[in-house]
Amino acid sequence: MGETTATIEKMLTVLLEEHKYTTLRDVLNTMAAADIAQLLDSLPHEKMPILFRLLSKELAAETFVEMDADLQESLIRGFSDNELKEVVDELYVDDAVDIIEEMPANVVRRILRQTDPDMRKMINEILKYPDDCAGSIMTTEYVNFKPDLTVAEAIKHIRRSGVDKETIYTCYVTKSDRTLIGIVSVQKLLIADDDDEISNIMEENVISVNTLDDREDVANKFAKYNLIALPVVDRENRLVGIVTVDDAIDVIREEATEDIEKMAAITPSDKPYLKASVLELWKARIPWLLLLMLSSTFTGLIITRFESALAACGILAAYIPMLMGTGGNSGSQASVAVIRGLSLDEIDFSDIFRVQWKEIRVSVMCGITLAAANLIKLLLFDRVGISVALVVSVALAVTVITAKFVGCSLPILSKKIGFDPAVMASPFITTIVDAISLLIYFYFASIIL
Amino acid sequence: MGETTATIEKMLTVLLEEHKYTTLRDVLNTMAAADIAQLLDSLPHEKMPILFRLLSKELAAETFVEMDADLQESLIRGFSDNELKEVVDELYVDDAVDIIEEMPANVVRRILRQTDPDMRKMINEILKYPDDCAGSIMTTEYVNFKPDLTVAEAIKHIRRSGVDKETIYTCYVTKSDRTLIGIVSVQKLLIADDDDEISNIMEENVISVNTLDDREDVANKFAKYNLIALPVVDRENRLVGIVTVDDAIDVIREEATEDIEKMAAITPSDKPYLKASVLELWKARIPWLLLLMLSSTFTGLIITRFESALAACGILAAYIPMLMGTGGNSGSQASVAVIRGLSLDEIDFSDIFRVQWKEIRVSVMCGITLAAANLIKLLLFDRVGISVALVVSVALAVTVITAKFVGCSLPILSKKIGFDPAVMASPFITTIVDAISLLIYFYFASIIL
Repeated sequence: MGETTATIEKMLTVLLEEHKYTTLRDVLNTMAAADIAQLLDSLPHEKMPILFRLLSKELAAETFVEMDADLQESLIRGFSDNELKEVVDELYVDDAVDIIEEMPANVVRRILRQTDPDMRKMINEILKYPDDCAGSIMTTEYVNFKPDLTVAEAIKHIRRSGVDKETIYTCYVTKSDRTLIGIVSVQKLLIADDDDEISNIMEENVISVNTLDDREDVANKFAKYNLIALPVVDRENRLVGIVTVDDAIDVIREEATEDIEKMAAITPSDKPYLKASVLELWKARIPWLLLLMLSSTFTGLIITRFESALAACGILAAYIPMLMGTGGNSGSQASVAVIRGLSLDEIDFSDIFRVQWKEIRVSVMCGITLAAANLIKLLLFDRVGISVALVVSVALAVTVITAKFVGCSLPILSKKIGFDPAVMASPFITTIVDAISLLIYFYFASIIL
Repeated sequence: MGETTATIEKMLTVLLEEHKYTTLRDVLNTMAAADIAQLLDSLPHEKMPILFRLLSKELAAETFVEMDADLQESLIRGFSDNELKEVVDELYVDDAVDIIEEMPANVVRRILRQTDPDMRKMINEILKYPDDCAGSIMTTEYVNFKPDLTVAEAIKHIRRSGVDKETIYTCYVTKSDRTLIGIVSVQKLLIADDDDEISNIMEENVISVNTLDDREDVANKFAKYNLIALPVVDRENRLVGIVTVDDAIDVIREEATEDIEKMAAITPSDKPYLKASVLELWKARIPWLLLLMLSSTFTGLIITRFESALAACGILAAYIPMLMGTGGNSGSQASVAVIRGLSLDEIDFSDIFRVQWKEIRVSVMCGITLAAANLIKLLLFDRVGISVALVVSVALAVTVITAKFVGCSLPILSKKIGFDPAVMASPFITTIVDAISLLIYFYFASIIL
């Protein structure tokens, strides 16, 4: 990818310098919006408005949607009111909302001034929902039928109004009070007889979400039921919007990224890595590092407490990193597996005992294997005394078992009490496991040695 | 979700016991396939065939696709040849391939015997592609037009053949040698005039993938271009199949899970956590634990090497866990951010210097913040001498900077030489960083103390 982009970039730069605007227009208008957006980002920013104005109206709007917020803002600031209106008129309402959410207040006011009243009403409708819920990612543009329409009338209706809708392939059947009573796919419409009534061919068991449902649940529903659109209803089952599959894909990717970031003790951000400033990266990372540094003071305290034991048997200190490392790795294996299961809706609170019982068995097997390997290594290669080897190996096995138990339980418990399981992952659990493993180690050392 | 399922489960169990099969049939046939599959899994397995036989033909096939491999296998073993044929006839070819890939050889032979020759040919076509490439997740059932068809003829063609296709919403235009020359959406067909020729309304700039492209690239294309289907072509640009968005969603989720598992030192598996046996979990985890245990021997060696220094200044040992922990956390923050960027195609090799420069600045800021906080804590709370406090704090800053540099560089380099960046994540980098941080610590200790 890198190479092709570089070639196209070079070509366009040359064309720009030679003022070959007709050629430029022809070239740009063969490209996909996402690729143009990427290209505009990599060219010097002062060239951006010239190139953008060469795009056809529709492609310009699509490209605009794909651009990063900072580029969008600088384009808007350069737009005349007319130009802004042309772009805004072509936007889908959910895309307009996404853009507005990223803009400063004065730019938002300018955008809304250029928006026709219907669209403005829809935008405000979506803006009122809190972030991360179904309402905030839906669009209010969809194809809507009354149940007594015939198939022929329905198809005519799509042909007339379908151009402006984000997806026409699933149509929604509602009563006059907007209550959702069924869906019908275009596939079904095309196959049905012209005189069939919609109410006879519609699917009545509709999978829907509530406006306030978490967007992660929305994404999981798409995956589970293989949907391309999902209706969003209010508490009275009245249709208020739909979520389309492209937005669900974005949610799935963003939620996975968030989980991964939290597991690595980073405050999640929706900015791509290369777009985030150094200060933003520092802010996302430093609180966690400070917190974890503070908490690892406990392990330090434990070691200080047993300083005399370490002084008496210096070789014990050499195995602390191995013990803490293996404990930490064992714990995060369990916690990460469980956290991912929770995110994908494969595990919920009622499964806690199944999970714990599974982890106990896995951890006993892992603990024994590791302890055995360790015992052999200690006796044959390190040539330590049998009692030291026993202390290290037994402590190792107990540490692994404890670590996996803590690791699998904490995420489920923290989800139950409303905390984020991913935050509970590796670093936190590692800190807890570190402390426990040291205590176990010194406990066995004081007994056996 | 857990509660509703439990209620329905109870209801169905009662209906089953009372032999109310007509009611059962009515209830089951209102449910979605994925929910029925989940339900069959939670009920006693000997009830499964009875319930399954109550489903309508189409719903039975859809439910079958949603079931886990072990349940599918036990159902097939109970099926008569006729029953098997009924299910197989209703399957989409890509679903059939997914099922076949999970079955033992004798079951596969039975399935293929009940498959009609056309379908068998398509199945074998897909089976020949290696796992994880576009060819292996595509379906060979799609709607195909010649360029000289009129819109009216095209719509008639869809109405005749569309029932059996997985998606009819994007149709593909090919020359007689199967070369892909354009796509046309049903949306466009519905809006166009009946006499328009397909070649005049088709989109000629088609985004496609090659049969051997990595399935992760396929998923990234769906996200980037907001597609609902993506054509798969061979090296001569001949259309061989399409990937549909539901399969792309599965890939996105699976790839994220794989990345997360690898970052936590688990061999990835496509089995959900609760479905994996204890032995399977052990097998996925123990090699990494053994390997990492072995590698943490190095840190042990380093500590042994400096045993005399530790004996002379015992307080130094107390800060080893804090130092190693903070180094490890700093390193994984950087590595995980970069690995995720690589997976989402936001970062590639040409960005390595940008990434490193960014991480150097972030790490210097993090290092100074942490060292300052640590210095204050050591002097005011731990009340250690100024020289010890300096050694610990300076070592901490240098460790953090080194850790972030190693953490951001290794994933990019390992991707470049063809290794999996995710495997390079936290545990490995932690081991390297642990060793480096200890060396730095003892180096400063020997200079200053």
